[in-house]
Amino acid sequence: MPATVHNLVNDPFKALAHPIRRGIVERLAVGPATVGDTTAGFGVSKPAITKHLRVLEETGVVRREVVGRTHRLSLELAVLTEAADWMDRQRALWGRLFDVVDEYLKEDNPR
Amino acid sequence: MPATVHNLVNDPFKALAHPIRRGIVERLAVGPATVGDTTAGFGVSKPAITKHLRVLEETGVVRREVVGRTHRLSLELAVLTEAADWMDRQRALWGRLFDVVDEYLKEDNPR
Repeated sequence: MPATVHNLVNDPFKALAHPIRRGIVERLAVGPATVGDTTAGFGVSKPAITKHLRVLEETGVVRREVVGRTHRLSLELAVLTEAADWMDRQRALWGRLFDVVDEYLKEDNPR
Repeated sequence: MPATVHNLVNDPFKALAHPIRRGIVERLAVGPATVGDTTAGFGVSKPAITKHLRVLEETGVVRREVVGRTHRLSLELAVLTEAADWMDRQRALWGRLFDVVDEYLKEDNPR
């Protein structure tokens, strides 16, 4: 079995597998924010947002700090970096596939 | 609602949200292969493999060509590139967060 980033329990790609969760990551990528600011305006119910936040926290992509009544969210950068590194390794490999097709079109099949 | 890569039906991150599916992508990133070669050795049942392949095909990450009795799989590079680009955009943003923390530790809090 090939090397894989994570087991299923804390799989950062599972965290990213929904557009609303990616929207939350996009907001937190510019800096920590309160739960209210992070989740406003997605146009879905509060229970739905709560469920998405739970997935983000369970997978370790988002961390929650509670100070008094304020819940502050931030990205767990190490976890996301591991996922981004995996993507980049695959892109480096499939980039070579692009090059092979390019070469084939240019050299062997002039039009 | 922030810009998102895809709707749920063809969400490449959903395709990547399982270690076996990432394993399949890793194998195909070096080039197209038969279904047999692509799915050998994962140590799970054939129905499980079939289910994972279906997710990869439905999300547009993997393409299947049938020539006679041979089923050849290859990556849909445009779909994966879009996902990799999203990751890189977020990494560029959260990279600035790292820099801010670095600066804080260096300049404001000498130990």
